Amino acid sequence: MSAISPVLDHLDQQLDHSLQRLFELLRLKSISTDPAFAAECRKGAEWLVADLKSIGFDASVRATPGHPMVVAHHDGPAGAPHVLFYGHYDVQPVDPLDLWESDPFSPALKEVAPRHKVITGRGSADDKGQLMTFVEACRAWKAVHGSLPCRITILFEGEEESGSPSLKPFLEANAEELKADFALVCDTDMWDRDTPSICTSLRGLVGEEVVVTAANRDLHSGMYGGPAANPIRILARILADVHDENGRVTIPGFYDGVEETPSQVLQSWETLGQTAENFLGPIGLSQPAGEKGRSVTEMVWARPTAEFNGISGGYEGKGFKTVIAAEAMAKVSFRLVHKQDPDKIRAAFRKFVEGRLPADCSVAFHPHGGSPAIQLSYDSPFVAKAKSALSEEWPKPAVLTGSGGSIPVVGDFQTYLGMESLLVGFGLADDRIHSPNEKYELSSFHKGQRSWARILDALTR
Amino acid sequence: MSAISPVLDHLDQQLDHSLQRLFELLRLKSISTDPAFAAECRKGAEWLVADLKSIGFDASVRATPGHPMVVAHHDGPAGAPHVLFYGHYDVQPVDPLDLWESDPFSPALKEVAPRHKVITGRGSADDKGQLMTFVEACRAWKAVHGSLPCRITILFEGEEESGSPSLKPFLEANAEELKADFALVCDTDMWDRDTPSICTSLRGLVGEEVVVTAANRDLHSGMYGGPAANPIRILARILADVHDENGRVTIPGFYDGVEETPSQVLQSWETLGQTAENFLGPIGLSQPAGEKGRSVTEMVWARPTAEFNGISGGYEGKGFKTVIAAEAMAKVSFRLVHKQDPDKIRAAFRKFVEGRLPADCSVAFHPHGGSPAIQLSYDSPFVAKAKSALSEEWPKPAVLTGSGGSIPVVGDFQTYLGMESLLVGFGLADDRIHSPNEKYELSSFHKGQRSWARILDALTR
Repeated sequence: MSAISPVLDHLDQQLDHSLQRLFELLRLKSISTDPAFAAECRKGAEWLVADLKSIGFDASVRATPGHPMVVAHHDGPAGAPHVLFYGHYDVQPVDPLDLWESDPFSPALKEVAPRHKVITGRGSADDKGQLMTFVEACRAWKAVHGSLPCRITILFEGEEESGSPSLKPFLEANAEELKADFALVCDTDMWDRDTPSICTSLRGLVGEEVVVTAANRDLHSGMYGGPAANPIRILARILADVHDENGRVTIPGFYDGVEETPSQVLQSWETLGQTAENFLGPIGLSQPAGEKGRSVTEMVWARPTAEFNGISGGYEGKGFKTVIAAEAMAKVSFRLVHKQDPDKIRAAFRKFVEGRLPADCSVAFHPHGGSPAIQLSYDSPFVAKAKSALSEEWPKPAVLTGSGGSIPVVGDFQTYLGMESLLVGFGLADDRIHSPNEKYELSSFHKGQRSWARILDALTR
Repeated sequence: MSAISPVLDHLDQQLDHSLQRLFELLRLKSISTDPAFAAECRKGAEWLVADLKSIGFDASVRATPGHPMVVAHHDGPAGAPHVLFYGHYDVQPVDPLDLWESDPFSPALKEVAPRHKVITGRGSADDKGQLMTFVEACRAWKAVHGSLPCRITILFEGEEESGSPSLKPFLEANAEELKADFALVCDTDMWDRDTPSICTSLRGLVGEEVVVTAANRDLHSGMYGGPAANPIRILARILADVHDENGRVTIPGFYDGVEETPSQVLQSWETLGQTAENFLGPIGLSQPAGEKGRSVTEMVWARPTAEFNGISGGYEGKGFKTVIAAEAMAKVSFRLVHKQDPDKIRAAFRKFVEGRLPADCSVAFHPHGGSPAIQLSYDSPFVAKAKSALSEEWPKPAVLTGSGGSIPVVGDFQTYLGMESLLVGFGLADDRIHSPNEKYELSSFHKGQRSWARILDALTR
């Protein structure tokens, strides 16, 4: 008999107990952004430490300037990999409270259709339900075999929903203790109800604010309209030049470090059935605005962008004012992929802007963050093992997906711990995270536990 | 002996008396925008009516929903023209009061240099001092000859500094009574201290607000950046397309009705010595942004423009937000010249925008006023007579100038009374109208009276 079968059986038998434990955690109002709930956050960390200790972890609440971290260690067999599991025990605020069908901190199991149950409550999907899938998998391994198949370090954060102010310093100060072969991050979704997903790429981000100044004061457009440079016109011209007619970014050097996605990966994305129609339809659009000749999936997961996130200048109120403004501002961001260098992109953009400025106008730039893209190799052995383990558990084989956004902790693990992350999660797009009536599928919770048990098993082979 | 000489002598002799009368009017705090001064506004109208009656005008205070108008009539000889004189007796607020060197409503004569005196006080230049130059000219004509050389109607407004809400309805309701051969408007400046000016053109204006909508809600730029249309990008592209690389407006049909300024007029403007350096230098610029190959004077007085007066979209606050906005807005205005048709310009712009819009995006337009340009013929006999009269009075010959802005009353006279206006004023650019320490040159007041006496005389010949 394999080592995994009795663990899976144990998880099936103990599902009700695991639910009761999750409910205990969900009852704690660990809203990290509101100082009124600081004590509840601390209770959440303490509850997790006690639970991990009961499994045999060497667990402790670790103080930060904000809400505490939970760190726990458990040995594994020699030769097996050492993994760092990450999740967060803090949750989003619950207002507007009157839109909740039941109390957000009174979790319950609710049958929404025959043989279809969901766990309701704030944090059920984001991220308490998800992190507990891993804890339950460890508990079952210990119960059945008296040991864990890998050496495991656990890091639970209490500030993910409020900008993670303590994370970087904590990683830096405790790098030796937290370093592992790779990280497992459980804070993402499945592709769909039947298809598990491993996220292998996250786009990077460069944020930049640009302020164009022309005259030394606001001008009357009657007295000066014509001869006087108009910063809105200059800025519009610059922004219009950023893309060509095929949706490509024209900034010289912008595509340095961008790689073509392997054709077999593109083909596997095509099988997911995501089209311009079903991706753009729900947001009221139909025509992809990105680079011509590429699918919407590739645009979001594997292509860089230049986006204008804000623009402002002159008179913006009701009515009209015949003013020529002294300055105009735009907030511009670039999503990066592969090996694009945030510093080089920022410098290239600034040069691009400066080269388009009339000699008597000036520009000021204000940086707003920069982080490179995360790209796991599609053929990493860890990815292959996790993919096969997930494919055994779920109705459909696991897919490798990308994410158009960034998950800062993944970059931080890379920067401070020199460690890649494997992103596996069991949320669904309709879980209403951050919104009223958050839920987590009972199948996500149950099969999520089984998935982690299988992944831990697979990683040792 | 000519009819004019004794009138001019009389004005010289009576200068002190005319100053005392002006001071009486300047002491009235007729701030039209502040309801607390409504009674003072009424006193201003009543003072003017009494003064005009003392000269022999049939004058009355005329109620409006806001501050009253003053209307006065005086007969003239058969065959002489009938002119409508316009000025306004209301003034701007006076704050910040602590920046005034003397009480704004305690007018005084101040010697600022040897043989250089100015009249200080709110309204001294804008517009009480100016309108009284005309009243004093009439008084002198009556005193010397017992009659006026023309039939004269006077209209003094009390709401010019607060948007003239009652003007249009009043003109419409009293069109028969107010209609004359042409209007004399005294609310403008001289070209410089020695050179009187007749303004013969005013640019028209079309204001338009354009709102581009893409997705049906704000989007996360990580999840949707690439495929999703960005309304700021669409708007920037549209605005950038409005001008070509030579500063010309590219909207089809935009230049319909624009005429080339006669070369002798352009030459006379060149003699004024206005250059890109001295026009743009004070506002911190050096390079004319308008149509290549034209002087800044021509750009402002005789060429149409497209200006972007405001722009807004997405996140404009501090910091950064990775949002793709659902909509973006721009306020666009067009300054019109000659025979450009505001309605056609508006329609052409809308078509221009619609033609550049992705099929799944939408646009809404909000009109913000439209008025055609005012263009007096450079060789009108009235203009020639006024020019020659002014040239006799001042050290340098009068120049025909244009104005880049609009003076609404001139358009309203055209629309409601079917009447052209002759714009002659004696203000100087440094009179600090609308600001603390407003002043009017004693020479403007004195030679302004003499100028009107000469113009009235010239118009009869």
